[in-house]
This record gives sequence, structure tokens and C-alpha cells, in this order.
Amino acid sequence: MLEQLKKDVYEANMELVEKGLVIYTWGNVSGIDRASGLVVIKPSGVDYDVLSPEDMTVVDLEGNIVEGRYKPSSDTATHLALYKAYPELGGVVHTHAVYSVVFAQAGLPVPALGTTHADYFHGDIPCTRALTADEINGEYEANTGSVIIETIGGRDPMEVPGILVRNHGPFAWGKTASGAVYNAVVLEKVAEMAYRTLTLKPDALHAPLYLLDRHYYRKHGANAYYGQGANEDH
Amino acid sequence: MLEQLKKDVYEANMELVEKGLVIYTWGNVSGIDRASGLVVIKPSGVDYDVLSPEDMTVVDLEGNIVEGRYKPSSDTATHLALYKAYPELGGVVHTHAVYSVVFAQAGLPVPALGTTHADYFHGDIPCTRALTADEINGEYEANTGSVIIETIGGRDPMEVPGILVRNHGPFAWGKTASGAVYNAVVLEKVAEMAYRTLTLKPDALHAPLYLLDRHYYRKHGANAYYGQGANEDH
Amino acid sequence: MLEQLKKDVYEANMELVEKGLVIYTWGNVSGIDRASGLVVIKPSGVDYDVLSPEDMTVVDLEGNIVEGRYKPSSDTATHLALYKAYPELGGVVHTHAVYSVVFAQAGLPVPALGTTHADYFHGDIPCTRALTADEINGEYEANTGSVIIETIGGRDPMEVPGILVRNHGPFAWGKTASGAVYNAVVLEKVAEMAYRTLTLKPDALHAPLYLLDRHYYRKHGANAYYGQGANEDH
Amino acid sequence: MLEQLKKDVYEANMELVEKGLVIYTWGNVSGIDRASGLVVIKPSGVDYDVLSPEDMTVVDLEGNIVEGRYKPSSDTATHLALYKAYPELGGVVHTHAVYSVVFAQAGLPVPALGTTHADYFHGDIPCTRALTADEINGEYEANTGSVIIETIGGRDPMEVPGILVRNHGPFAWGKTASGAVYNAVVLEKVAEMAYRTLTLKPDALHAPLYLLDRHYYRKHGANAYYGQGANEDH
Repeated sequence: MLEQLKKDVYEANMELVEKGLVIYTWGNVSGIDRASGLVVIKPSGVDYDVLSPEDMTVVDLEGNIVEGRYKPSSDTATHLALYKAYPELGGVVHTHAVYSVVFAQAGLPVPALGTTHADYFHGDIPCTRALTADEINGEYEANTGSVIIETIGGRDPMEVPGILVRNHGPFAWGKTASGAVYNAVVLEKVAEMAYRTLTLKPDALHAPLYLLDRHYYRKHGANAYYGQGANEDH
Repeated sequence: MLEQLKKDVYEANMELVEKGLVIYTWGNVSGIDRASGLVVIKPSGVDYDVLSPEDMTVVDLEGNIVEGRYKPSSDTATHLALYKAYPELGGVVHTHAVYSVVFAQAGLPVPALGTTHADYFHGDIPCTRALTADEINGEYEANTGSVIIETIGGRDPMEVPGILVRNHGPFAWGKTASGAVYNAVVLEKVAEMAYRTLTLKPDALHAPLYLLDRHYYRKHGANAYYGQGANEDH
Repeated sequence: MLEQLKKDVYEANMELVEKGLVIYTWGNVSGIDRASGLVVIKPSGVDYDVLSPEDMTVVDLEGNIVEGRYKPSSDTATHLALYKAYPELGGVVHTHAVYSVVFAQAGLPVPALGTTHADYFHGDIPCTRALTADEINGEYEANTGSVIIETIGGRDPMEVPGILVRNHGPFAWGKTASGAVYNAVVLEKVAEMAYRTLTLKPDALHAPLYLLDRHYYRKHGANAYYGQGANEDH
Repeated sequence: MLEQLKKDVYEANMELVEKGLVIYTWGNVSGIDRASGLVVIKPSGVDYDVLSPEDMTVVDLEGNIVEGRYKPSSDTATHLALYKAYPELGGVVHTHAVYSVVFAQAGLPVPALGTTHADYFHGDIPCTRALTADEINGEYEANTGSVIIETIGGRDPMEVPGILVRNHGPFAWGKTASGAVYNAVVLEKVAEMAYRTLTLKPDALHAPLYLLDRHYYRKHGANAYYGQGANEDH
């Protein structure tokens, strides 16, 4: 079942390795089939170099395993919370990429310092509050999803398609599994640029809002003029 | 038409990938045929791994598409402004290379701290002023060209063949498309050296002018003695 | 003798190169056969690119060469001290990996700032005190082992399977030679994350203990639920 | 003539590229045949990817070209000054490797912070004073050699086989051309470790002298016990 989606999710997981965002088993990508409400996700703790499309696990939105010989990623409940909250999401990814983790460990958002950031993220990339002891000792992974949703608030999740969970690391999402990975790669790159800018000049200022808007809307929305006409949202 | 120039511009674009200056579609290189006044440039938003020489777009100096199935780079108007202002330019490049972007985001020039810098750039690599809201909301890409030209002022653009646009990133140029890429690679490398020097020693001083001159003129101008006799200008 | 262990130790040594933890001869891995009390270790000063499984040296726990045409690693006495103190160790590794060395040179522990750290190390990764002049001028390598053991104190060495020796570099260990290398790779990666977090935000705080516990026990001990059921300890 | 030395020098030059110490033409290695007093050196400004052993230029100790179709490196006079001052040198190398340049631009020595440094360099790696305007405007490359020799003072040049020229970059040397490159690679790596240590902890202290001595003399001199008996000096 869902052979094409399994292949897409498998390839999106392998893309994490190729882009240098994960080592060992430090990441997971999922994709959803909205028609059936089923989610395909990387199995927990399986090395990327032995992974194949058939190893992907299929779960429903309540986390029940529908198909697969492996347990799904231990972060599955976080993915599901995001799919349930945001119908526009087609893929979700979690990594421990270095610069994204660094902002999460520092408890700081990635500030919108320039156009590289603004081309993909409309405003700062937020860092969630710390989970409470109760939230961590309870349904930890589901509560991680809840604090992400709390942080996004009433905003459109596709305007800032990634977030940092305090003391943990990044989650990103997109219209597809590969789009989610694309956004995670961009998040990591702009986090690196922000890290270096702030270590060079700790009081560096945000780019002006009109510059951020110009770049964001060059690529997104009705008046986009970047690219060959296809919408550049990932 | 312009088959050789298309090939050169294509290869210069691919060189950006090989040198690690771009990911995804984050850069563009152009080259000009001065006899016809036609510019060959990367198409907008097309991935490097599917790019071929025939995909290059040909535009005239007013930005009209003369040949090509793709829309040209969204930064085309910036390239054209530079070609029109400086007849000695044969190639122009724009990237989002990390260390160059970092200085642009910090709003700082790359200071001439040593001979690596001086071998190619005669003095600091400037950072433009921020564009105004009107400039950004108007003909943004053409105005980006204007602020570069304003910053160069009356100087010979080949003496410092690159610049940082505030909160945006680097543009570089050269006698050819590949020469422009060469200068962009050097800009990124000396920006990295300056970043690390200033984070190690925030009050690091400029190298003395006579040292900068000695190195610059070892490689450039009538008394150059570096290399095998060919002028080392790119 | 011990052909499989020699192969395992050889491959663990080569893994150091593949993971970028060593250049030239800057590291060594050993593994122990607890039944015979014999240790297989990399020979001293032999380049990785000419190494083969048969080049591994076999020593007993007193450091006598039992088999092998090469002298064992000059750090052998440190490895042996650890094997003698901790029966649960199956492999030991020493490297000069950059970020681990940086914390050793700064004389600082790697603080537990986030979940990447907590997934493998239960608390800070300590830095030993400096050895005294007498300890250095005497049985230096054995004394290096002693100061590691002194620093671990009464703790279970598998809870924090790595350490920094002041002004020197990291030692790590595991259930096997490859497990030791795995832990050395993780130590280097979390040291990099801590380095960048602390240069971005020098007063960054430890992650809360309940978060560290949650992640550590997701992967370790009786209630672990990460992975496919096998214990994730390396 | 000197076919073996040309091959050795060629391979040492290519090693600079493989180890990531140079891009484009940013480095040069030479080797000397002490019997004839002839020096083999990389030609000036020739790209590494078109270089072959036969392209190496042969000069005498006064800089006269004895054989070769190319002009020698523009830094030849610096190499020759070192060969004339120190009969024990068999190879010399100059690069613009990033971390070495950073200390040169900061005008700081690379402090001996740990054992990685001490295994190869017996004490700080010095940074020369700035050359005067007269020295730069005169026989610049020969004067660069002179200031290196002035900085070494009465010391054995093999005890600290590398140096930083202020605002310029590193020179290193060894018993052979490949040994010189080995030392340049180590210099760059310990400069990286020192850079990161000092940005993490600006007041990091030197390692104790008895630790530095212990490590240096484990590998060097009559009582060395590292390796398989061959002297580890490069």
C-alpha cells in the first residue's frame, strides 16, 4: 500500500543524509496520504545505510501501526500532532542538524537577518518555550507537538515552515516529504548564517520588514515572479 | 546563437556548485557578448542538476528576452545595470555564499587584513548602504544595481571585483563569466578569513597599505611578476 | 589468534578515518577478549592507509606483547587501566578530534545542553584535572588512565561513555570497539554543538534534568522504547 | 635532472590540494638536493590540476633558473633564504590555509595549548613582526625569509617547523618536501584547535611545560618511544 508515498518518504529520509543534516539515526521524515489519513514514517533506530522503501512504517493518525515490520520513529506522535493541526501539511521532518540545534540549545529564535532567510521564512524562526516537567514526564512526544502548535499560534504554518524545540532541535514541514526536507536544509543554512553574523556582530539588527516582505513575496503567493511560474512553496 | 558564451556561462554556473558557493538555486552567473550587446544568464529557479547550456536565457541590455525557453534569473536587472555602467565587465555573479552573506547581514565591509585579500582585492570589499523602502518597493533589482554603482563611486570596478549588498549578499564580476566566479570564490574565502580573524581578535588591524599594494601589484598591472606573464586579472 | 576481534578492531580504527575524527596516526582503538584477558590494539605510529587486520597487536592486561610484529599504541597503558577498572568495557578509543580537544584545552566539561547530548551521555562529559608534573614524568600513560578513573569516581562508566583529559583530548569506550568509536563520534558532535552554543550565548544553561533523563532513558535501560527492541547502549 | 626530487616535490604540492590547504594556485612546495645545491619548486601561478612532475622548475641557491620551461614560484627567494640559513631543511612550503592565515592576520602566535600541538611543535608557533615599508618595497620575498630567520633566532628550526608571517600566512619546513607539507597540515590543524579554544575561552592557558615536553620527546630525539623506532621528525 501507498508504494509511491513510501518511495517518496524513503528518498526524503536519504536526502537528509546526502545534505549532511543527520548522522547515524538522528532524524526522521514522514509523509501523509490525506485521502486515507495514513502516514508513512521512518522506522525507529534503523540505520540509513540499510534502509529501503519497504522498511517504511504506515500508521494512522492515532498512531496505530497499519503496515510495516518495524516500530515507527519514536517521534511519531509529534508528526501526527502536526498533521492533525494543519491540513495543509504533506510532510514533516525532525533532525539534529548542528546550527538548528545550537539555536534550540541557546533558547533563541533564528532572527531574520537577510534575504536568504526571507526567501523561505516570513519572519523569525521561533524557538518554543521549554516543556514543563509534567509535559516531559507525560506524553512527551505528543506534548512536543502541542508546544510547536502553541508557538505557531494563529499563524499560517507554511509562512514559517520550521521551528526549534527548546533544548532539543528543529522540526520542519512542507507540502510533501521532500518539501519538508528542503525547508529543513534551508533552516539549517540560515541558522548557520545567523550564528556567524551574531558571533561577528552580536548586536546585528533584523533586516527591514519591507526587504523581508519583498523577498518572501518574490517567491510566494499570487504576485510571485521568481522561478518559471510554478509556486515556489515547498 | 552565442553557443560558446552559453557554454561558458553554463560552466561558470556549475562551478558555483563545485566550489560549494551555492545550494539549490541560490546563485546565478551571466556573461555578455559586447559585440552584440547580448547577455547570457541562468534561468530563474532551475536546479543546477538539470541545467544544460541550451537552458541559458539570452536577453538584451534592456532585459528583453531574445532567446530561451525559460524566464531569466530574477536578478537579471542587477546584472544589466552593472554591464551598462562598466564596459570592462564580461561576467557577473550573485550567490548566497555563507561568509559573504554574514558580512552583508552584519552590514560590515570585509577589511583588508592580509595578503590573501590583497592578491585580488585592492582595499576593503565594501558593503552597500541599505536600500530604502521606496527603492525596495519599486524597481528592486535595478535599484540593487544602482546602489552597487553608487558604492563603487568613481573607482575602477576591476580593482575591487566584488561587493556586498546590505542584508542580502555578494555580487562579483570579472572579465569573463568564469573570472567573475573566480572572484566570488576568493571573496568568500577572504570573508571567511576575516570572520575568523575578527572573532579571534575583534580589534585586528588592517594590513599596512604598502603590504597590500605590494601584493596587489605583484599580480595586477604593468609591473606584475606573478605567474607566467599572462595578466592575472580575472 | 583472535581473528574476529582483530578484524573488528581494525574496522573500528578505519571508522575513525571515515568519520573524520583522525588524520595521520592521531588515534587508536582497542578491543578486549574478556575470556582470555587479551587486548587487540592499533600499532603505534602506523598510517591508516597501510593498516590491515593482521597488523593489530595483541597484548595482555599487563601490557606484554602476546602477538604482533609491531609495537602497540603508545597509549596502550591508558587503555589497559580502563579495561582493568571496568569489566563492562569491551572497547576503548582515543582521538584528537577537534571539538573534543578544544574542551580539553579549555579545561571545561561538555555541558549537557540538549537532547542530542542526553540521548547518549547522562550528564556533563567531564574534563579531568591536570596531571601533576610527577604523574607526567612518571608512568604517564598509566597515570592518564588513573586520572580518568579518578574523575569517573563511583559512577557507572557506561552512563557517560567518554571523557576529556585536560590539555590532551578525548577517550571514549563502549561495549565493543565499534561501540567505543560510535560514542567518540557522538562526543565530538555534541562538543561541536556545545562549542557553538556557548560562543553564541556564553551563559547558555543546562537543559533541565527531567528532559535529560527522559531522553537518556528513551534509549537506555529497562524502559527504553527507542529503536527496535535491542538495547541502544553502544 | 633530479627526476626523483621533481616527483617528490610534485607529489608534495598535490598533497596540499588533497589535504584542503590550498585552492587555485595558493601555495607552493620546494625540495632541495643538498649534494648539488639545487632546489626544485612549483612554477608560479600554474593550476594544480594541470601540473605534472616535469613542470617543476629547478633553480640554484641564488635563484637562477637551471632547468624548466616555467618561471619559479614568486616566493622562491623566501624558500632559498631558508635553505641557505638552515642546512637541515630538505623541504619548504607556503600556503594560505585558513586558520594559519587567521593567526597571521591577528598578529598572534599559535599558543601551545595541548598535546596535539606538543607532539610536533616544541612551544608556541611564532608570528613574525610586520615587515617595514622599506623591506616590503625592496627585496620583499628575500626579506620575508630574513624576518622568518630573525624570528627563529638561535633556535633549532626543526623544533618548531613552521611559522606565521604577519598579515601574510604560514611557512613550514621539514626534512623533505613531503615532511614540510606534513608539518603545514599539523600547523593548520593546531591553529584551528587554538582558534576554537580561544573563542570558547579567551583566557585559556598554555599547557604546562612538563606536559609539552613529555609529548614532544615521546616523538622526537634520543628517548622517543612513539612509533616503530624510526625517528618521527618530518
